[in-house]
Amino acid sequence: MRINVHFLPALTTAERLAGKIVVVIDVLRATTTIVFALAAGATEVIPCLEVEEAREAARRRAGRAALGGERGGLAIEGFDLGNSPAEYTPESVRGKSVFFTTTNGTRAMTVCRQARRVLLAGFVNLSAVCQELKREADEVLKLDIICAGTDGEITREDVLLAGAITDELIRGRMADLAVNDQANIARDAWLACQQSGVPLEVCLLASRGGRNLCHIGHASDIRLATQIDRHTVVPELLLEEWRIVNAKR
Amino acid sequence: MRINVHFLPALTTAERLAGKIVVVIDVLRATTTIVFALAAGATEVIPCLEVEEAREAARRRAGRAALGGERGGLAIEGFDLGNSPAEYTPESVRGKSVFFTTTNGTRAMTVCRQARRVLLAGFVNLSAVCQELKREADEVLKLDIICAGTDGEITREDVLLAGAITDELIRGRMADLAVNDQANIARDAWLACQQSGVPLEVCLLASRGGRNLCHIGHASDIRLATQIDRHTVVPELLLEEWRIVNAKR
Repeated sequence: MRINVHFLPALTTAERLAGKIVVVIDVLRATTTIVFALAAGATEVIPCLEVEEAREAARRRAGRAALGGERGGLAIEGFDLGNSPAEYTPESVRGKSVFFTTTNGTRAMTVCRQARRVLLAGFVNLSAVCQELKREADEVLKLDIICAGTDGEITREDVLLAGAITDELIRGRMADLAVNDQANIARDAWLACQQSGVPLEVCLLASRGGRNLCHIGHASDIRLATQIDRHTVVPELLLEEWRIVNAKR
Repeated sequence: MRINVHFLPALTTAERLAGKIVVVIDVLRATTTIVFALAAGATEVIPCLEVEEAREAARRRAGRAALGGERGGLAIEGFDLGNSPAEYTPESVRGKSVFFTTTNGTRAMTVCRQARRVLLAGFVNLSAVCQELKREADEVLKLDIICAGTDGEITREDVLLAGAITDELIRGRMADLAVNDQANIARDAWLACQQSGVPLEVCLLASRGGRNLCHIGHASDIRLATQIDRHTVVPELLLEEWRIVNAKR
C-alpha cells in the first residue's frame, strides 16, 4: 500500500483521487463529531455545503431529522445542534438522520467525489479506521489521506492524525516506505509529538484549530477529540447516495 | 519574533509577505548551489525565470558572466554550468556574475518581491542564516520562511530545513511559541529526523527531491547539500536590483 497525504484539499484534485480509497480528516471538529453522532445511534449523517440546503432537506424528513453544524465555529440559528461532539448523544440523535454542514470538513469531502471509498477519521476512532484499511490492504494499492485544514490553512491537528495513521500502517507492514513527502513529514510530526511527552490535548490546544476553539469557548471539545479510540465507528461517505453511515454495521 | 512557515510558495501571496523578512529554501538544489557560487567568489547571482532571458543578459556582460541552471534537473544547452553545487568553484565563477535559472527556486523568489529583505538558506549555511536573523531579531516581529517544493509538491528536505531554522530561533529565544502550525509541523519533523539517528543525507535520499536527483545521476549533490554549516555565506536577494549578493560582505 502506498500512502499519499495531502495537507489541504487544495493540494490534490478530484481527478487524482478517482478510484482510490480516501480518508478525510477534520479533527477539530467535523469528522470527530460525525463519529460521535453515529456512535450515539444516528442512522446517517448527510453532509450539506449550504445552510439552506440542510434546512430544506431536514424539513422533508420532519420528525426523523436533526440539523447540525456550524459557521465560523458557532451554532447556526434554528439548528438543533452545533458542532460539539458532546451534543451528539443518544437523546439528541438516535434513530435520526443528521443534516450536517460545516465549513472545512464538508469541503474536504467534495474533493473525494470520484473516489472508490471515503472513510472519515478522528483520533477518537483511529484504530477502527486503521483496521478497516488493513482489511482492504490486499487490494488497495493506493491510499490518500486528506487533511481538511481551516479556511485554507494547514492545521497541525489534522497533520498529526494523518501521521498517526501512516505510522500505524507502516508498523503493521501495510504500507511501504514509498509514501509521499507529506506522509513522511506527518509521521515525523506525530512521532515527535509522542516522544515529547506532551499530552495530545496540550499539543492540540496550541494548534490553530485549538486556539480557535478556546477563543469561542469550546476548549472542552479538544479533550473529547483527543480521546484516542473512544469509539469503534468508521464513518463512510457513500458517494452515490451522499450520506455517511457506519461502515462496520 | 513570530515565524510563519509556508510549505509551498502557493500557500502564501506577495501581499502577505510585503514588508517582511523572508527566508527562501530550495535545498535540492537552487539555494544550496547559490551559497556555493557566492562562497566560490562569484560577485553576484542573478535569478532569471526564463532560459532566453538568462542568455540575453549574460551576452551583455560578456567575459564576466557565467550561465547556470537547469530544466527538469538537467543542464541547459549552451550553459556554462548546471545546478550541481560541485560545479560552482573558484575556477568557474570567481569574479563573475552568474545568470541562474531554475524551475522551483526562482519561482519561490518571485513571490517575495514586496518583502523587506529576502535571504536564501540551505543546510550548508544554516548557522550563518540564523545568526543574520538574530542580528535582526530586535526589530523583526515577523519572519516568513518559504519552501520552494518541486513542481507544486511539498518536499521533505525543504520542510526539514524550515524546521531546523525554527528550532534554532526558538531555542535561542528569538522566536516565541506563537509560530504558525506549519512551523510547528516542520520543527517536529526536524526533531524526529534528528532523534531517529538516521543521517540527514539518508533522510534526503528518500525525499521526493532526493529520489529525483538519484534518478538523474546526481546523488552526490545530496551529500554536498547536507554538509551543515560548510559555508558562512548568507545570500541576499536585493529586490530593487534583482540580484543576489552575500549579505555578510
